Amino acid sequence: MSLEFHEDRKFHDECAVFGVYGHPEAANLTYLGLYAQQHRGQESSGIVTSDRSAHHVEVGMGLVQDVFTPAKIATLHGDLAIGHNRYSTTGESLLKNAQPLAIDFSLGALAVAHNGNLVNAVEVRNQLEDSGSIFRSTMDTEVIIHLIAKAEGNNFVNRVVEALLQVQGAYSLLLLTEEEMVAVRDPHGLRPLAIGKKEGAFVFASETCAFDLIGAEYVRDVHPGEMVVVSPAGMRSFFPFPKKQPAQCIFEFIYFARPDSMVFGENVYMIRRKLGMELAKEQPVEADLVFAVPDSGVPAAMGYSEQSHIPFGMALIRNHYVGRTFIEPSQQIRHFGVKIKLNPVRRLIEGKRVVVVDDSIVRGTTCRKIIEMIRSAGAKEVHMRISSPPTTNPCYYGIDTPTKGELIASSKSPEEIRKYLGCDTLAYLGLERMLDIFGENRGNFCSACFNGLYPVPLPGMEIRQPGLFESVL
Amino acid sequence: MSLEFHEDRKFHDECAVFGVYGHPEAANLTYLGLYAQQHRGQESSGIVTSDRSAHHVEVGMGLVQDVFTPAKIATLHGDLAIGHNRYSTTGESLLKNAQPLAIDFSLGALAVAHNGNLVNAVEVRNQLEDSGSIFRSTMDTEVIIHLIAKAEGNNFVNRVVEALLQVQGAYSLLLLTEEEMVAVRDPHGLRPLAIGKKEGAFVFASETCAFDLIGAEYVRDVHPGEMVVVSPAGMRSFFPFPKKQPAQCIFEFIYFARPDSMVFGENVYMIRRKLGMELAKEQPVEADLVFAVPDSGVPAAMGYSEQSHIPFGMALIRNHYVGRTFIEPSQQIRHFGVKIKLNPVRRLIEGKRVVVVDDSIVRGTTCRKIIEMIRSAGAKEVHMRISSPPTTNPCYYGIDTPTKGELIASSKSPEEIRKYLGCDTLAYLGLERMLDIFGENRGNFCSACFNGLYPVPLPGMEIRQPGLFESVL
Amino acid sequence: MSLEFHEDRKFHDECAVFGVYGHPEAANLTYLGLYAQQHRGQESSGIVTSDRSAHHVEVGMGLVQDVFTPAKIATLHGDLAIGHNRYSTTGESLLKNAQPLAIDFSLGALAVAHNGNLVNAVEVRNQLEDSGSIFRSTMDTEVIIHLIAKAEGNNFVNRVVEALLQVQGAYSLLLLTEEEMVAVRDPHGLRPLAIGKKEGAFVFASETCAFDLIGAEYVRDVHPGEMVVVSPAGMRSFFPFPKKQPAQCIFEFIYFARPDSMVFGENVYMIRRKLGMELAKEQPVEADLVFAVPDSGVPAAMGYSEQSHIPFGMALIRNHYVGRTFIEPSQQIRHFGVKIKLNPVRRLIEGKRVVVVDDSIVRGTTCRKIIEMIRSAGAKEVHMRISSPPTTNPCYYGIDTPTKGELIASSKSPEEIRKYLGCDTLAYLGLERMLDIFGENRGNFCSACFNGLYPVPLPGMEIRQPGLFESVL
Amino acid sequence: MSLEFHEDRKFHDECAVFGVYGHPEAANLTYLGLYAQQHRGQESSGIVTSDRSAHHVEVGMGLVQDVFTPAKIATLHGDLAIGHNRYSTTGESLLKNAQPLAIDFSLGALAVAHNGNLVNAVEVRNQLEDSGSIFRSTMDTEVIIHLIAKAEGNNFVNRVVEALLQVQGAYSLLLLTEEEMVAVRDPHGLRPLAIGKKEGAFVFASETCAFDLIGAEYVRDVHPGEMVVVSPAGMRSFFPFPKKQPAQCIFEFIYFARPDSMVFGENVYMIRRKLGMELAKEQPVEADLVFAVPDSGVPAAMGYSEQSHIPFGMALIRNHYVGRTFIEPSQQIRHFGVKIKLNPVRRLIEGKRVVVVDDSIVRGTTCRKIIEMIRSAGAKEVHMRISSPPTTNPCYYGIDTPTKGELIASSKSPEEIRKYLGCDTLAYLGLERMLDIFGENRGNFCSACFNGLYPVPLPGMEIRQPGLFESVL
Repeated sequence: MSLEFHEDRKFHDECAVFGVYGHPEAANLTYLGLYAQQHRGQESSGIVTSDRSAHHVEVGMGLVQDVFTPAKIATLHGDLAIGHNRYSTTGESLLKNAQPLAIDFSLGALAVAHNGNLVNAVEVRNQLEDSGSIFRSTMDTEVIIHLIAKAEGNNFVNRVVEALLQVQGAYSLLLLTEEEMVAVRDPHGLRPLAIGKKEGAFVFASETCAFDLIGAEYVRDVHPGEMVVVSPAGMRSFFPFPKKQPAQCIFEFIYFARPDSMVFGENVYMIRRKLGMELAKEQPVEADLVFAVPDSGVPAAMGYSEQSHIPFGMALIRNHYVGRTFIEPSQQIRHFGVKIKLNPVRRLIEGKRVVVVDDSIVRGTTCRKIIEMIRSAGAKEVHMRISSPPTTNPCYYGIDTPTKGELIASSKSPEEIRKYLGCDTLAYLGLERMLDIFGENRGNFCSACFNGLYPVPLPGMEIRQPGLFESVL
Repeated sequence: MSLEFHEDRKFHDECAVFGVYGHPEAANLTYLGLYAQQHRGQESSGIVTSDRSAHHVEVGMGLVQDVFTPAKIATLHGDLAIGHNRYSTTGESLLKNAQPLAIDFSLGALAVAHNGNLVNAVEVRNQLEDSGSIFRSTMDTEVIIHLIAKAEGNNFVNRVVEALLQVQGAYSLLLLTEEEMVAVRDPHGLRPLAIGKKEGAFVFASETCAFDLIGAEYVRDVHPGEMVVVSPAGMRSFFPFPKKQPAQCIFEFIYFARPDSMVFGENVYMIRRKLGMELAKEQPVEADLVFAVPDSGVPAAMGYSEQSHIPFGMALIRNHYVGRTFIEPSQQIRHFGVKIKLNPVRRLIEGKRVVVVDDSIVRGTTCRKIIEMIRSAGAKEVHMRISSPPTTNPCYYGIDTPTKGELIASSKSPEEIRKYLGCDTLAYLGLERMLDIFGENRGNFCSACFNGLYPVPLPGMEIRQPGLFESVL
Repeated sequence: MSLEFHEDRKFHDECAVFGVYGHPEAANLTYLGLYAQQHRGQESSGIVTSDRSAHHVEVGMGLVQDVFTPAKIATLHGDLAIGHNRYSTTGESLLKNAQPLAIDFSLGALAVAHNGNLVNAVEVRNQLEDSGSIFRSTMDTEVIIHLIAKAEGNNFVNRVVEALLQVQGAYSLLLLTEEEMVAVRDPHGLRPLAIGKKEGAFVFASETCAFDLIGAEYVRDVHPGEMVVVSPAGMRSFFPFPKKQPAQCIFEFIYFARPDSMVFGENVYMIRRKLGMELAKEQPVEADLVFAVPDSGVPAAMGYSEQSHIPFGMALIRNHYVGRTFIEPSQQIRHFGVKIKLNPVRRLIEGKRVVVVDDSIVRGTTCRKIIEMIRSAGAKEVHMRISSPPTTNPCYYGIDTPTKGELIASSKSPEEIRKYLGCDTLAYLGLERMLDIFGENRGNFCSACFNGLYPVPLPGMEIRQPGLFESVL
Repeated sequence: MSLEFHEDRKFHDECAVFGVYGHPEAANLTYLGLYAQQHRGQESSGIVTSDRSAHHVEVGMGLVQDVFTPAKIATLHGDLAIGHNRYSTTGESLLKNAQPLAIDFSLGALAVAHNGNLVNAVEVRNQLEDSGSIFRSTMDTEVIIHLIAKAEGNNFVNRVVEALLQVQGAYSLLLLTEEEMVAVRDPHGLRPLAIGKKEGAFVFASETCAFDLIGAEYVRDVHPGEMVVVSPAGMRSFFPFPKKQPAQCIFEFIYFARPDSMVFGENVYMIRRKLGMELAKEQPVEADLVFAVPDSGVPAAMGYSEQSHIPFGMALIRNHYVGRTFIEPSQQIRHFGVKIKLNPVRRLIEGKRVVVVDDSIVRGTTCRKIIEMIRSAGAKEVHMRISSPPTTNPCYYGIDTPTKGELIASSKSPEEIRKYLGCDTLAYLGLERMLDIFGENRGNFCSACFNGLYPVPLPGMEIRQPGLFESVL
């Protein structure tokens, strides 16, 4: 009787982080910073503050607005704070996996918020257990904490470096002790992390939309491989790791980030619009109407329309009241599943040759239902245009993609996909054309999901990423 | 510390109704029909079914998905059902005002779902109390039920007619007894009500988007002044009231209805697009970018762009995770309130002359903040364009508008409004131009909110409408 | 998998009422008065206050402490209040049956709290519906309200009299208008209602334990057939009904009321102790230990011990954490159901001849399990003693008894019951002996559940009482 | 406005444990075993099961019946289980301190349930942190887990011994790996732990009332210093620690345990009754009525009555509907706080010389209110009798007592206490007389709370026990 909306979003990014150093409203600002980044994780949310002598912790399952009540925020004393949103999955029991992870160790209190995914976590965890460590979660982040606690450096910063030199993979981290905050990106800079300022305080966020909401100024990104330390003595910058070629996640532009955010120095909306324009140049088609699969496809669809001069419309309406579960009539209704979220404007579509723009195709199942619904609404021709190359490989750096086998483009040709989807034509944006948009920065991105070139070697390429430890469960 | 979002929507319509006659999944279909019409009322939701011998009732506060669990729907036996969504206000105690209203009277069980507002409810209620009636709610709908119970007609249908002849105002009603369903619109047809069919069953809805979700076919509207009776003997149609000039609510097109719905025989999206095109013809301006205040302004903005050839963009991003309450930082952040819902894409706006299209202006306070936010995002010129005439008069027929004094256009000239809003130019669509869109039907609408010509006379014009009884509380 | 404890109490009384006239903390005191009387009704609770110009209402499902939060009580303005607890049944949907019932009628606002049950409610309701009345609940109380609204008296008090002259059965009522409170008992005085004073304010309660909690002084009972009216002019007393022989419910002493309460002028604990002493005189037995089925049987067991000089012990321990539902192991455990609530002290019981005292036997199923558990704990002989006569007839005056057929004593002889229960001997207290305790008042009680002599004639004796309207559901 | 009932129980024991080895309904039985021991801990409850290859965990805040739904229990697969109830305190954030504690370490999965308190936990924790351990809770139990993980023994059992040799204090532990269960009591046997059998499965519980509910047979106690290991090879017993004089907590008899339980081989009810009888011999008084402060004082009061031949009554009635919070009238009502829980039967008390029996006096504040309430109910003389010696010293072995300074008997003479309480006479049971009840076992108990003779030396006697780590918070 019930339909669950795990797939409210196509992919799940592993999380948003946010930090404030030195603001009397640290907890409130972190709450807002997490709220602005809610799209990056809906499973759990947490904030740890420091009043410079002790930590205060609130972590819970659900959306930011569900986890934090005014009463709870009022207990989060102090002018230092870090926060975290985690992506959506099922079950309260996973509260143990909610972040920030807060512990006590020999130097005092420590809290960590992590965006990304380590590729050698299983190996390091096994070594740690052999030396007597215990684990209470299945998160790779717990590995980092153990390494810090066991490190021999003479101060906290040195210990963090010592720990991170032992792990490989993707991490944008915020670490908080009683008086210090460390913000660090892995040497490839796989996941984003930006620095801002608000009234003299330093702020950190995965996306700059968090700065906009709180009225903070975007200063710059933490650079790939950079470690920024904020302490009572001010901010210092280090580059403690061997230098690597940047490999920033290009999918942030294609799907994850909010259109109003700056990511890796570029505005997401503007990039998406250019993707649509390039797509129109590369994959033109004669048609009467261009529209998007909302919301992520909208800027690309507008770019396609702008370039092709085919009129743009909002022919698919998104229902704003979609929740987690839904009671389904026992009897079959055509296109039912997709209609709970999207509804066609029949009068706009009927009799027309339409171009439908989406950002990507994963399994193809939802796309197929959308095309069928568009045809039922009377479209004469349906031309599917994808504003990125075929997604052929899973991500191991913090994106919850299906396995290679489940990715329709990993085994089917575009023509086979077209037949499966049931559209008249199907075309993707070419990889090189996509990278051209970034000009001289074209070499600084990870495109492994499109071309299989993984910047960080994996211990075993057959392992499905998000299951690192959870596969044990 | 908390900001409540009563104003998630500008206006509140009094409700959505939905009905099914003769389908084994009546409760499930009604659940879906209410879900599709959630935008018309978020305060409470209810369903009454009949298994042809008894009624089953579930009514609760909140959204459709919150009120109805699978366990509750499973208790709603029978193949006849009516449902209702009510608009949002505060307080659980108002459960007594949730609909459908279900009672027992001399002919058996009766349930009523009502969209609209009576203008002589206070007078009739006073008469009823004088004759010994008791009232448990503050809804005008309870008046109708008492009149039916006291009517002397020899059957249910005659009693309904007798009752409705005593009331004046706006009503689109669904009435359910054990075996009959009555769907009726007031003589002016102020509020919508559509008839559909699904697998031999009759269905009724305020908007046809409800039919689309369940896969029902839209047949026609219940006509102004028509009473449709469905019984085991089939459907019959009556016109029991003195004929009046139709006066259908034009604001359904401008703001309330979903773009994919057919209302009064027209598609809402297409009308909004034409409003934008007419606005561009009547109120042109030199600019670099057109964008909308989402979501209601989007089709008009696209029409404006299409007509004016000024490029269209989605320069304001709507946050999909907005909930009811929000914790506000105690310290002031610029444009904070509006940024919880809407965020500008600075890179798209900065340095440009922009046309901002909205469907209407009520008090002007939110619009002013949006304009200020757009300017802060770097717009060189801001030209506000409204796809309807100035809203100068309150509605007494079921829309929860502010009082006349609160409507900015009731006392200020366009130039004064422009100054208050802080835009470079401000222009509205003219009333005649708006009506022209409807061609020969131009005379069949109520435009009282624009011109003060109220089709149904009011006992006292100074009374603010939605307070009818609630003002007593 | 789950066992529901509808039977946490053997019988269900229809409710507790409480009222305050003229105290600045009326809502708080009513909350406390309802809390003290929680044992009389656990399904729903409600309070209506009057600030002398308007009513304020809070009604909800559940225990007093669940229904009323400080925030809700804070909205209950005014120095006049009435409250009500209703007995436990299932389903939130019965919120419509929660009391006090609050309505508007021609004289203004009216709220009613009712303890008891009318026997001609169906007939009166049918007449009312024929004359155009509508009903929103299935409570007989709604009949009273309609009769008041339709009465022709020139003031509220006269209307109440006119209405009550048309109903028959059991009622202890509190009625509240904006400025008046009426407390009235039916001519037989079937259900209790006491008058108290606190700091100049009048208070009313079903049981005096409510007065003790708030520190009020117990003045006297409202007399059978008396109507007490409190208004700004002070308190007045009327006897508007034809005089009848008092028939006060004797079961209040045997089971319902709290031991510390005064009911019908007598202390409940002292009466129960005397019942046990008389039982010991009439039904002696040689034994080593007397104990009770807690809690209602305890004072009688102590009386039995005192009279017989057989030592008293607490050989059955009651679990204080029993809640509503319980997960049962799928595999059978001996005496499981009863052990969730009661547990034997084996070392006290084993090898002994025991007298087990309970207040009454209804169906006999629970009693049988208790006896079996006591035998398993090692008792050599089990002598069951009941501190009232065999319960042979259902109550129609507000107690939720099983039907006659379900009452084990209606069809089985004491010896047959003894065999079914599995005890060595079984004996009841005789009816005359029980009444002797009350001396010259012996004739002022209703003992219909023991002797079938119903003081108020019933329209149809076959009707099961509590179903009056609910049987229709 | 609200009164919280932290003090629903006088003292808080640190917890109940329960275990099952080898029963197909392990989770269900553990649920029941925890339910039966709810009185030992109301803050949180948890169950960990093993299906012999993996652990399944459910832990939550609240009562057993609130934490475990049928759906949650259904996920607890396997025939091995341990469970834990923790005592009541405030705040959801302490979920991190709920047990069983479940972790992964080098040998696999491990879960621990702990009743008791270590006295050298701070020292060991500091050492562990210095060697690189991290802590996520403030429980001393986490210390034990780290010691096991870091131990060098060649198997699990040896590691547990190695770990426990490093800690001092009170512990009754259940440890669960994938296939083994270990039950162990500290060398003094400070806290109880019993072994039972049910249908071939081994079961363990803090109190035998848990065995009675599930129909298990009580076999014997785990002996002080004994380690019982259950594995697929069967049950083995070890005594790995240096032998110590048993020092079992005598307060289990006086207050904590349920009357129907066997603790340290004795039935609690029978011991309490004897305490009352000895009290009557040692501290007689002329009086008309004996009654208890319910519920813990009841068996002693009955013993007092039996010995003294002064009639016993239930003159204080306990309200069964007491919940966590209560709304208090702003105006003062006499004895209000205590009347929410206890109410006097005035007719039984008035004019009498009464003996009031309680098990102990802690701060004296509640006792004083009770005595005042009894006097207000008309008692002529109030003789307070306590069925244990004066409580003069705090417990450091797992009981949440106040500090020494807060214990009224630590600084005041009996006569000073009597004056404070306001009773006519006050007398305690003597320590030697109390121990005499246990005959030849009289030396096997810890009476430190009465005589300050602590069997396990403390690192610093001034430290308040339950705050070990929490004092830092």
